[in-house]
Amino acid sequence: MSLYDFQSYVNKTNLSKSWYERACNVFPGGISHNIRFFPPYPFFVERAQGRNLYDVDGNTFVDFWMGHWALILGHSPQNVVQPLVKELGQGTLFGTVNDTSVLLGEVIQKFVPTADLMRFCSTGSEATMYASRIARAFTRKKIVAKVLGGWHGFNSDLMHSVNYPFEMNEGLGLAGGEGDFIESLPFNDLTGSTTLLDSVRDDLACIILEPLLGGAGGVVGEKDYLKGLREYANKNNVLLIMDEIVTGFRLNFGTLSAMYGLEPDLLTLGKIVGGGFPIGVVCGKEEIMKITDPSHKEKPDRCYVGGGTFSSNPISMKAGLLTMDYLKRNKETIYTKINQLGDEARSKLHQIFGDYGIDVEVTGLGSLIHIHFLNQNVKIIRNATDAAMADQEKLLKYHLCLLSDYGIFFLPKKMGAISFVHENKDLDVLLSATEDVINRGILSKL
Amino acid sequence: MSLYDFQSYVNKTNLSKSWYERACNVFPGGISHNIRFFPPYPFFVERAQGRNLYDVDGNTFVDFWMGHWALILGHSPQNVVQPLVKELGQGTLFGTVNDTSVLLGEVIQKFVPTADLMRFCSTGSEATMYASRIARAFTRKKIVAKVLGGWHGFNSDLMHSVNYPFEMNEGLGLAGGEGDFIESLPFNDLTGSTTLLDSVRDDLACIILEPLLGGAGGVVGEKDYLKGLREYANKNNVLLIMDEIVTGFRLNFGTLSAMYGLEPDLLTLGKIVGGGFPIGVVCGKEEIMKITDPSHKEKPDRCYVGGGTFSSNPISMKAGLLTMDYLKRNKETIYTKINQLGDEARSKLHQIFGDYGIDVEVTGLGSLIHIHFLNQNVKIIRNATDAAMADQEKLLKYHLCLLSDYGIFFLPKKMGAISFVHENKDLDVLLSATEDVINRGILSKL
Repeated sequence: MSLYDFQSYVNKTNLSKSWYERACNVFPGGISHNIRFFPPYPFFVERAQGRNLYDVDGNTFVDFWMGHWALILGHSPQNVVQPLVKELGQGTLFGTVNDTSVLLGEVIQKFVPTADLMRFCSTGSEATMYASRIARAFTRKKIVAKVLGGWHGFNSDLMHSVNYPFEMNEGLGLAGGEGDFIESLPFNDLTGSTTLLDSVRDDLACIILEPLLGGAGGVVGEKDYLKGLREYANKNNVLLIMDEIVTGFRLNFGTLSAMYGLEPDLLTLGKIVGGGFPIGVVCGKEEIMKITDPSHKEKPDRCYVGGGTFSSNPISMKAGLLTMDYLKRNKETIYTKINQLGDEARSKLHQIFGDYGIDVEVTGLGSLIHIHFLNQNVKIIRNATDAAMADQEKLLKYHLCLLSDYGIFFLPKKMGAISFVHENKDLDVLLSATEDVINRGILSKL
Repeated sequence: MSLYDFQSYVNKTNLSKSWYERACNVFPGGISHNIRFFPPYPFFVERAQGRNLYDVDGNTFVDFWMGHWALILGHSPQNVVQPLVKELGQGTLFGTVNDTSVLLGEVIQKFVPTADLMRFCSTGSEATMYASRIARAFTRKKIVAKVLGGWHGFNSDLMHSVNYPFEMNEGLGLAGGEGDFIESLPFNDLTGSTTLLDSVRDDLACIILEPLLGGAGGVVGEKDYLKGLREYANKNNVLLIMDEIVTGFRLNFGTLSAMYGLEPDLLTLGKIVGGGFPIGVVCGKEEIMKITDPSHKEKPDRCYVGGGTFSSNPISMKAGLLTMDYLKRNKETIYTKINQLGDEARSKLHQIFGDYGIDVEVTGLGSLIHIHFLNQNVKIIRNATDAAMADQEKLLKYHLCLLSDYGIFFLPKKMGAISFVHENKDLDVLLSATEDVINRGILSKL
């Protein structure tokens, strides 16, 4: 808390402060998702439109968090929410099969090579849990390899080696048994990874990874690394699962895997494909996904995955379909614009910090951007360990200062995202604010 | 398929048949949730209003499934969906803390004695996973006791002994490690249960159960059984978790636990409290829930639970709050009406079948109802084994016939629910249809 003088933030967030005190009497730590807390207390959002968040005190923030990177068209895009008005009156939860889910599935199928068949659920955490279960079921093997710092949600199956120090259990209450079946690989280090894979090869079911580490700082998977894993998996009858919950339909109208010429065996989606409503998707090759068909009635033959009460609910399905249709129809315009803004943000931020002798690496790809403050321990960011070694306190201070004094919201310490409703002027504001933060000496103060 | 002549269903569901064929090319088995398949193929819902489902062929069904029992006010109640129209345009996913979540939390807190503190997530499956994780973290023990047939969602931690035969693994792909930490108890058998609990007492973290078995046929927990487990837990420093995802705010404006005078240590909610949108809630005593506070930054001290991208999203929060406010303001009227309709349904269905010499037990409580066709193997339904022994084929035939020939929808083989928008006339239609099904000899034909 001594990091930064929060006075300007505190001065303008009186009501948020009261709401936060009230929230602490309801939720442990005042939040329902750990990363949504930041010091001294988070501002409480009342409404969101386009690229802006409006808080309970009447402050406006330009949002570079965009609903955990899900809102590629901005908050409440008219072409998505307008048709939903009618849907609201026609059932929000059928609890049955519906035609809209088929239409959304068909779009995904067409643009994701791996998606011969799929299953909808309600969160990304469910999707990755099912993907690893399906891989274990199909291969009849037990070990799941993931990468150090790989984040696949809060499910017990994959919540291992997520946060630094990676070798330490993620916390109390994980039964331990699950961890026995996880092998954690160094990202972007093919030799190191294959050595570890070889050590568990006999019982290895799958390798699951994000092609761009989302939670761990926007670190891009190197093409040779990803291709090397694909080859290893082919050679050893192991499934390759790409977790594209963050990257799916974020960089182009399809997957990052396909951009790399890679075809995984299973692939997970979420965020963008739900159009701002809850969704998770596990997709895969036909021969693999078939194992989840409920016509396999006998326990020894089946792989039992959800679903769930809210799966394929008509609002998520319709919002997803409208979003996908809009993205597809305008894909040139949209992806060109947001990728260019992202490229520009990366290069100009790098330049500004460099001009002032502050050593940073700006990671990310397309519209996803993340800043790492380098130091004597780390000079280049190639994996989650590097990202963890960078100066987290400086990053926190930078994000908090942008938030307090310039109305720019990055979820502190997290990767940012640009949406289609962001403009050059938002980037200009970010760049000039950054220069101002540096000039004020805030990043050097302790 | 030889069970029943589906001709009248097939005749009126041409378009659903085509949609189902299309769905099978997208989803394994044409569904995203196993229980939503029934023979010959499920009808595809286009919209839902009040107590009705409308399918793509123009058929209308009176819905006794009500969105997996979540929709206590019917489909798209005006007082919930009308105010949501404005919300749609003001952000569907803030990705930040918001005041509405505090208001919803405060209502739950006031009417659920166990809910000193809580955490919102997006599905029931997540809520029960977190509850068991928190119990393990708090007690620093590993074994979770559940009941045979107890259904807590698709998470790997609790997906054991769910379906008959209970002793057999639930399917392929569950790593196995988790199952080593589960002990399964016979429901409503206190001596049998405590003997098993004693056998694992040294490493026993918690007992988790639904006070009314939802998926396993609406079997009501006997008061002495539930009290006995509460006493056992107290005596042995074990946590008692009540899974009230189905029963919370379904039978009264509160929990079934409280109606029984029981106070669990942790309690899960879902369905009704989300007002028809995705939600899961894990609630508990302050000293226990505190362990999830993100201010516990060090891994050895913390219990790491979600959250997730869609947690506390403003639409689920607002819909939940509007639903809870309406239920609270009208609780006498609403619960009196739906509980009476349920009582009447149970007694009259029992009587009709009895009059024709068909031996049934109608389980459930309040507005939840389920029919079990008894046979030489089972004469009384006290647990999930009894429910599994009842004549499932006859139940399927009964439900399919109601659906095909009378426009009455129970999800085949599943418990039904009555909502506030159901009327006496719906019950009359159900009763006369039932009598007609019996008279036509359909239940005796093979």
